[in-house]
Amino acid sequence: MQPQGKIVPVILAGGTGTRLWPLSRNSLPKQFLALVSDNTLYQDTLLRVPPGDDFLPPIVVTNTDFRFFARRQASEVGIEAVVVLEPARRDSAPALLAAAAVAQQIHGADCLVLALAADHVVKDVAAFQAAVQAAARVAASGRIVTFGIAPDGPRTAYGYIRPGAALAEGGHTVDAFVEKPDRGTAAGYVADGYLWNSGNFLFPAALMISEAERFEPELTGAALGAVARAGTDLGFLRLDPESFAAAPAKSIDFAVLEHTKLAAVVAGDFGWSDIGAWDAVREIGAPDADGNVTAGPVTLRDSHDSYVRSDGPLVTGIGLAGISVVATEDAVLVMPSDRAQEVKQLVASLKAARHNAADEHVKVHRPWGTYQTICRGERFHVKKIVVDPGATLSLQKHHHRAEHWVVVQGTAEVTVEDKVFAVHENESTYIPLGGVHRLANPGRIPLEVIEVQTGSYLGEDDIVRLEDAYDRC
Amino acid sequence: MQPQGKIVPVILAGGTGTRLWPLSRNSLPKQFLALVSDNTLYQDTLLRVPPGDDFLPPIVVTNTDFRFFARRQASEVGIEAVVVLEPARRDSAPALLAAAAVAQQIHGADCLVLALAADHVVKDVAAFQAAVQAAARVAASGRIVTFGIAPDGPRTAYGYIRPGAALAEGGHTVDAFVEKPDRGTAAGYVADGYLWNSGNFLFPAALMISEAERFEPELTGAALGAVARAGTDLGFLRLDPESFAAAPAKSIDFAVLEHTKLAAVVAGDFGWSDIGAWDAVREIGAPDADGNVTAGPVTLRDSHDSYVRSDGPLVTGIGLAGISVVATEDAVLVMPSDRAQEVKQLVASLKAARHNAADEHVKVHRPWGTYQTICRGERFHVKKIVVDPGATLSLQKHHHRAEHWVVVQGTAEVTVEDKVFAVHENESTYIPLGGVHRLANPGRIPLEVIEVQTGSYLGEDDIVRLEDAYDRC
Repeated sequence: MQPQGKIVPVILAGGTGTRLWPLSRNSLPKQFLALVSDNTLYQDTLLRVPPGDDFLPPIVVTNTDFRFFARRQASEVGIEAVVVLEPARRDSAPALLAAAAVAQQIHGADCLVLALAADHVVKDVAAFQAAVQAAARVAASGRIVTFGIAPDGPRTAYGYIRPGAALAEGGHTVDAFVEKPDRGTAAGYVADGYLWNSGNFLFPAALMISEAERFEPELTGAALGAVARAGTDLGFLRLDPESFAAAPAKSIDFAVLEHTKLAAVVAGDFGWSDIGAWDAVREIGAPDADGNVTAGPVTLRDSHDSYVRSDGPLVTGIGLAGISVVATEDAVLVMPSDRAQEVKQLVASLKAARHNAADEHVKVHRPWGTYQTICRGERFHVKKIVVDPGATLSLQKHHHRAEHWVVVQGTAEVTVEDKVFAVHENESTYIPLGGVHRLANPGRIPLEVIEVQTGSYLGEDDIVRLEDAYDRC
Repeated sequence: MQPQGKIVPVILAGGTGTRLWPLSRNSLPKQFLALVSDNTLYQDTLLRVPPGDDFLPPIVVTNTDFRFFARRQASEVGIEAVVVLEPARRDSAPALLAAAAVAQQIHGADCLVLALAADHVVKDVAAFQAAVQAAARVAASGRIVTFGIAPDGPRTAYGYIRPGAALAEGGHTVDAFVEKPDRGTAAGYVADGYLWNSGNFLFPAALMISEAERFEPELTGAALGAVARAGTDLGFLRLDPESFAAAPAKSIDFAVLEHTKLAAVVAGDFGWSDIGAWDAVREIGAPDADGNVTAGPVTLRDSHDSYVRSDGPLVTGIGLAGISVVATEDAVLVMPSDRAQEVKQLVASLKAARHNAADEHVKVHRPWGTYQTICRGERFHVKKIVVDPGATLSLQKHHHRAEHWVVVQGTAEVTVEDKVFAVHENESTYIPLGGVHRLANPGRIPLEVIEVQTGSYLGEDDIVRLEDAYDRC
C-alpha cells in the first residue's frame, strides 16, 4: 500500500434540501445558506478541511445552477476550489466516482479522497480532523472507510452500521449497513453498538474506482468517460453530458459500499448532524432556560421547547409548546416540531399549486450579483440590483419595458446604444423601451441600483441577450 | 313623550383594538380595517344605519389621529358624516354625551340617538334594524335602551344584563348589569335568561343628558362645555380641549346606565360580535370541512380547528390543531386560539421593547394618501407613494436628503423652487438636497410614485413644512 500523504477533499454540493423550506429552496438550497453559523454550511465544510499540511485544495461537485454559488462562497472564505459540474442529477455514485477520477488527474493515481456532504454540521472540528487522520491510516491499508457516528439516542432518521472485527490499523470491518429503522429497532441497534451512517467516506481513489468497476461497470464507465471528455467553461470543469447521462442514478452506498469486502468503519464523536429537517436544526441550537431555540427577530410569551426563526418579519408566539415556526420575507411555516419530516410533502404540494415561494427566493442570485423585487404593480416593477465589483450584466434589450435606474451606492458604467457613461451615487439614468443597454460595476465596492421598470409586460422572459460574459446568450 | 322620528346614529370610532394585533395597531386600529368583509368595520357600521327613511346622517366621534380615516372611509361608502374630534381619551361617557349635544344642535333637542361602537360585527342587518325600531319605541317612552344579545353559550368575554319586568312598549326594565363572569357563573346566567351587554344604546338625547347631569354633573358639564366651545377645523368639529380635559374618564355604563331607573333592555338576535380578539374573529368566519378558517394565501396540511390569516406572505401549516396564525408583511403571531386574550400583554411588551411593528403599519396613511417603505439601505430609502386624486402634499424641504421620483401611474404636478411642471407615467424628476418642493395629483386616478431618497440621514423628521393644506406646518 502507498504511504499516507495529503488528502484530497471532495465536497458534494449538488443537493436540494426541501425539508428545510422555506429557507432552503431549489434556487438556493441548504448547503449555500448560513443556517447555524455566520458561514454557509458549504463554507463551514470547506473550512473543516483547509488546504495546508493535511489537505490538498478541494474538489467541489455541483450542478450548473449552483456553480457561481460554489465558486463565490469558496472564495469568500479564501479557498480556491476546483468546481466540477454534473450535467444531470444521478445521485452520489456517479458524482463521487467522477470526482475521484478528477482527483487522480490532478494529484496522481494514488491520492486519498475524503468525500464529504456539503450540508452537514460538525461541531467539534478538531475531533473531526482526528477522525479523518485515523480513517486515513485505515484507508491507506486498502480500505474504503465510512465515518460512523456514536448515537446519542435511538434516532429513526439515520441509517445504521453494524461494525465487525477490529482492524490492526484502527476502525472495524463492516458487518452490515442497515436502513433507517423504526424506534424500537433503533433502540436495539444502539444497545448492540451500531453506529449512525454519516454518508461521508475516505478512500484511495484507485481502490474506489476499481471496486466500482467490479460492481457497477456501466455506471463507472459513464462517470469516467464524462471526466475523460470533460470541457472547461468559464473556469468550471464541465463533465461530458452525453457520457454522464448514461450513468444510472445510484447512491455510492448501494453501488459500492454494500457490496465491497473492503469497507471499514471508523467511529467518530464530533458533534455531527445532517440537519435533515427543522427538528435537527433545533437540536443543534442553544436552547434558552425554557428550552426554546430562536434566531432573528422573535418575541415569545409563556412558550417552551419551541424553535422559532425569522429571516424577515417580527415573529411572536404565545403559549407555544413544541412548535416550530420558520419565517422568511415571503413565506411562513408553522408545525409541531415532530412533524418536521412532512415539510417535504408540503413543498411538493406547493410546487403542484405553482406557488413561487416553493422554489424561488425573493432575492435571486445571478453570476454578476443579485436582484430582488421590492415592489410590484400592474404596470411597474421595482427591483434592488446589486452588482459585484468588476461584474457586468449582459448586453440586452427589452421589447415591452423601459427602465429607470437610480444608483444608491457605488458607481455604474452604463451602456445605452452606442454611448458608455458613468452614473454615480445619487444620479439616475433612463433606458427607453427597446434600447440596447448594459450595466456594469467598474468599481471596488458593490454597486447598488434601484430599478423602476414600467411597461405593459414585465416578465423576466422579456430579455434579449446580445452579449454575455456568462455564456447565457 | 315626543312622537318617534328619525334616529341620529352616533358612531364611536376612537378606540385602539390591540388584541387584534398584528393587524390592528395604534396607527390604524381595528375599526378602520377590513377584517370580515370587503368594507372596514366602521364602513359596515355606517351602512347598517344609512341616511334615509329611518336614519339621519351620522355623527362620528373619533380623535385627531383618525380624523382622515373617518371622513375618507365614510365618503368611500357614499356617506357624509359629521366628524367630531375628541381632544383626549376619556372613555365612552364624555364622548357620547358630547355627541348627544351635537345631535341636539343639528337635529333639535328632542332627537333620538343610536350610539354604536364602530368595531362590532352584525351579520343580520335586517334583524338589527328591526331591533332598532323596537328599541326606538321603548326609548320614545322615556327610556335609555341598551341592546341585549341572546347568548349562544356561556361566554366569559362579555358583561351580562338581567332583564326585569316587561314594558308595555316592548323590552324589559333592567334588574342588573353584571361584569364579565367566570365560566360556571356564565352558564348560570344563560340558564337564568340573562343577555349579553352589547354596549350599544338608543335614547332621547335630552333624557341621556339630564340623567347624566344627575349622576355625573362634573363630567357632563365638561362634555357639554366642550361642545359649546367647539371649533371647526378643515370641516371637522373639534371639541374644546380645555373643557373636555376636565371630564374624568368613565364609561357610559358606569356613569349613567348602572344608576338610572330609566334603563331598559331590548333583546336582539342579529349575529352580533364585538370581535374583541382573534378567537372571536375565527368564530364569525366560515369554517371548512376540517373546522379551519383561513384568509389570504394559506396552505394547510392535516390541520383542523385553526385560524390562519395572511395579509402578506404565504403561510403554511402542518398538523395544526386549535392554533391561530396571523401574518402581515412585517409581523407574525402564532398561538393556541384560546390564548387570544393575551395578545394585549404581548403588544404591551413589544411596545416596551420599542418594536416598530407594535404601533406602526408598513403602509402609513396621510391626509393626502399613503406611503410605504419598500426598501431601506444605510444611505438610501425607497418608498411607494400614492396620492389621492386632487390631493397635495405640503410644500417642504429636507436638510439631509435628495429625492428621485419616478411616476408609475397617473400624472404628478411637481413644484421645485419656483418651477411647476407635470411629470407623466414613466417619467422621472429629481429634488436636490435643500430644494423647496411639492407633489400634487391634479388628475382623476390615484398617482403612484416610486421615491428613492439618498442622503446621510433619512428620518421622517427631516422635513420642513412651509405650507400645508392639512395644517401640519
